[in-house]
Amino acid sequence: MKYSQLSLPALEKELELQTIKYNEYKAKGLNLDMSRGKPAADQLALTQDMLGVISKPEDCILESGLDCRNYGLLDGIPSAKQLFSDILDMPCKNLIVCGNSSLNIMYDTVARAMLYGTYPTMIPWVRQGTVRFLCPSPGYDRHFAICQSLGIEMITIPMTKTGPDMDMIERLVKEDPTIKGIWCVPKYSNPDGITYSDETVVRLARMECAAPDFRIFWDNAYAVHDLYEDRADELLNIYFEAKAAGNKDRVFMFTSTSKISFPGSGISVIAASTNNIKQIKSVMTVQTIGYDKLNMLRHARYFQDVEDVREHMLRHAAILRPKFRAVLDAFDKELGPYGIADWTDPNGGYFISLNVMDGCAKRVYELCKEAGVTLTTAGATFPYGRDPHDKNLRIAPSYPPVAELEAAVKVLVVCVKIAALEKLINQ
Amino acid sequence: MKYSQLSLPALEKELELQTIKYNEYKAKGLNLDMSRGKPAADQLALTQDMLGVISKPEDCILESGLDCRNYGLLDGIPSAKQLFSDILDMPCKNLIVCGNSSLNIMYDTVARAMLYGTYPTMIPWVRQGTVRFLCPSPGYDRHFAICQSLGIEMITIPMTKTGPDMDMIERLVKEDPTIKGIWCVPKYSNPDGITYSDETVVRLARMECAAPDFRIFWDNAYAVHDLYEDRADELLNIYFEAKAAGNKDRVFMFTSTSKISFPGSGISVIAASTNNIKQIKSVMTVQTIGYDKLNMLRHARYFQDVEDVREHMLRHAAILRPKFRAVLDAFDKELGPYGIADWTDPNGGYFISLNVMDGCAKRVYELCKEAGVTLTTAGATFPYGRDPHDKNLRIAPSYPPVAELEAAVKVLVVCVKIAALEKLINQ
Repeated sequence: MKYSQLSLPALEKELELQTIKYNEYKAKGLNLDMSRGKPAADQLALTQDMLGVISKPEDCILESGLDCRNYGLLDGIPSAKQLFSDILDMPCKNLIVCGNSSLNIMYDTVARAMLYGTYPTMIPWVRQGTVRFLCPSPGYDRHFAICQSLGIEMITIPMTKTGPDMDMIERLVKEDPTIKGIWCVPKYSNPDGITYSDETVVRLARMECAAPDFRIFWDNAYAVHDLYEDRADELLNIYFEAKAAGNKDRVFMFTSTSKISFPGSGISVIAASTNNIKQIKSVMTVQTIGYDKLNMLRHARYFQDVEDVREHMLRHAAILRPKFRAVLDAFDKELGPYGIADWTDPNGGYFISLNVMDGCAKRVYELCKEAGVTLTTAGATFPYGRDPHDKNLRIAPSYPPVAELEAAVKVLVVCVKIAALEKLINQ
Repeated sequence: MKYSQLSLPALEKELELQTIKYNEYKAKGLNLDMSRGKPAADQLALTQDMLGVISKPEDCILESGLDCRNYGLLDGIPSAKQLFSDILDMPCKNLIVCGNSSLNIMYDTVARAMLYGTYPTMIPWVRQGTVRFLCPSPGYDRHFAICQSLGIEMITIPMTKTGPDMDMIERLVKEDPTIKGIWCVPKYSNPDGITYSDETVVRLARMECAAPDFRIFWDNAYAVHDLYEDRADELLNIYFEAKAAGNKDRVFMFTSTSKISFPGSGISVIAASTNNIKQIKSVMTVQTIGYDKLNMLRHARYFQDVEDVREHMLRHAAILRPKFRAVLDAFDKELGPYGIADWTDPNGGYFISLNVMDGCAKRVYELCKEAGVTLTTAGATFPYGRDPHDKNLRIAPSYPPVAELEAAVKVLVVCVKIAALEKLINQ
C-alpha cells in the first residue's frame, strides 16, 4: 500500500516500526560504502595478465622500429589508436591517445580553451568575461568540479528519458554567446544510465549556437560497458552528425580503459575534428614529449582488437550484474509497494539513480551515514552540489561484494522509508 | 696555430683544404643525429627487468591494503615518495609523485599559476597584465617553449661558470613585479653542464623580489646523473635555504626518472612547501583522481632505495662516458689548436655546450645539416630561439653509437672550421 494513502496514525505507526529496524542496523556498527564507481578486485584481476605482456627489450619495439621505452610520438602508438578508433568509431587521424586519466584530458581541454581559446576564434575564454557551461543533471560530479575550479558558471539542464532537455538547450545556446560548452555522458549516463536518443544526438549536433567557439564535451566513458548482452544501448556517432551539419569542430570526445583494464593505470583518448586535433597538438607538444607508450603497448597487445574488448566486457558484466540485481531486487521488494521512490534499471554503466521524495535525499544520506552506510553525497550529482529538488541519490553497486551490498541496501531502504514517513507526517 | 694569427692567403688556403674535406663527407650521404638528449637502447635495457616486477594480483597491493590497480591516492604511493625524497633530499610530505613527464608537471605548474595564481596572493597571472620570466641561457628549449606558448615574456640571463648572472637577476627581480618566475636547471645545466655554486643557490633563495608570487622553477633533471665517480658535483638544497630566509614558498622543484629508467615511461615528482603543495593538490584533485600507481610501484620495487639508484647510474655513466670522450677528444684534437671555439667538459648531465665564433653557430648548423649531420637547431638554447651572439651549439652525444658519433663529430669540426675561416676572411 502506498504511504500517501495511509492515515496519519498509520504513518506514525509505520515510522515507529521502521525506526526500530533502523536502530537495530545502527547498533551493528556497519561500515559499508556504495559511494564511488570503482571496479572490484575480481574485475581488476580480469586483465592481470596484461601486466606481463611486455617484458623483453624486443617486446618494446614497434614494427616501425620505434622504441616505446624512449621519448617521442606525441599522439600515441598506432595500435592503441586503432583500438580506440574501433571503440569510438572515429578515424585514427582524429585521435590522440593519452595517459591514465581521461578526466585529466578533459580538465586540460577546458583549461586549454581558457588559456588559448578554441577554433576558429582562438580567443582565450579567460579574455571573454563570463563563461557558462550547460550541465545536464543529475550528472558527473567531477565534470562540475572542473567548471567550479575554473570559475565557469554552470546552468543545470534537467535530464529526460532520452537525454538532456533539448528544447531548453537549443533556446539557451541560440541566445547566449557566453555559453561555451556542455558536459555530456551520452551513453549509460552517470548516474541515470540513460543513453541519448538519436534525436537528442542529432539536435546537439545541429543546433544553432551563439558562441562560434561552443564545444560539446562528449565523455563516452561507458562506450562498451553493457550489463546485458540482450539489452545493449546504441549511441549515434555525434561527430559524423556534427560534420554533416557543418559543425565538425563542435565536439571533443573522450573515453578511457579505466573500467576496462585498470582504473589507475589505463589509457585514455581524445577524439575531435582535424582543426581541433591540430590545435590540441600545438599546445600538447609544449606540455609533454608524449604519454606512456609502454602502457599503450600493454593494452594494444593484450586486446588484439575491439572484439577482444567486447568479449572481455562480458566478463565484467557477469561480475557486475548480480550486484545491480541485488540493489534492484531490494528496491523492487522494499520500496516498490510504497510509492515513495523511483529508480533506474540501466542497461550499462556503473550506477543506479535513486530518486526519493522531494526534499528527502539529504535526510536519507544522513540517516545512512549515521548507520554506517556511505552513499555519494546528496546533491553531488548537481552543479554546486545543489539538487533543486533534493531527491537524487547515486548508488554505486560495483565495488562491495554482493553480501555487503545486500546488507547496505537493507539499511538504505529503511532510511528512504523513514525520510518519506517524516515528510508525510509533517506535511 | 691559431686561425686569428694566420694571414689572409693562409686563411684562404686553409678554407680550400677544409672545403675539400667537407665535400668528401658530404658525398658520403651521411645521416647522423646529435640533436636530442635521448638515452640509447643499451641504457634502456639496464632497467628492462623493471617491467616484470609486477605481475600477480598480490604484487599490486601495498602494505596499507591499497590496490594500486584501482583509483585513488592523489599524491602517489609512499615507497615512490620515499625514493624521490632521498633523491631530492626533501621531506615526503612535500612531494607529489606524478606521471611519466616532469615537463608536463612544469607546464601544469605554470598554467596553474596563470589560471589560479600562487600563494600567498592567489591572483591569477592572467589577471595581472604582463608576466615575465627570467631565462638563464643557454638553457632548455622546452622551458622557453612553455613561456612562449602561454604568452610569458622572456628575459635572457647570461650564464657564468657558477650559474646565472646573479647581479643581473637580483637587480631585475627587486625592481620589476611583473617578473614572476625563473627557469633553472641547477645541476649539470642543459646545455652547459654547470652546477650552481652554493653562493648562487643562496642568493636565489634570499634575494628580494618585487613580486610576492615570484617562483623559482627548479628543474633538477640531472640530480643523480654524474658521468664520473671522482668528479661529481654537489648541489645545495635550495628549499632549505629559502626556508631559512623566510622564502619557503618560492621554490617549485622537479625531477623524474626519465633518464634513470625509461624516458617515455618513467615517473616524475614535484616538491614544494606545504602551502604550495596544498594549493597544487586543491587543483590537481579536480584534474585527476591520481597518476599511474602501478608504474610508481614498478620503480619503487625495482629500486629498493636511493643507493640502488646511485649504483644503477654508474652503469648509465659507463655507457655515456665513451660517447662524451669521443666528442671531447675530437674537439681537443681538431678544434683545440685553432682558437676558434670553446666547449664544456661536464661532470654530468646529457650535453656538451659548444661555443663557436660569434655569428657562426647558424652557419655551422646549416653546414652540418647539408652534410647529413643533425644538430640541435642553432639558437634553440635561447628564448625565442635567438642566440644574441649566434655562437652556442648544443651537442647531445647520448643517443648515437660511438662509431656514429665519431663520424658525426668529424663533420662537425670541419664545419666549425669553415664557418670560422669564412668569418675571418670576410672581416
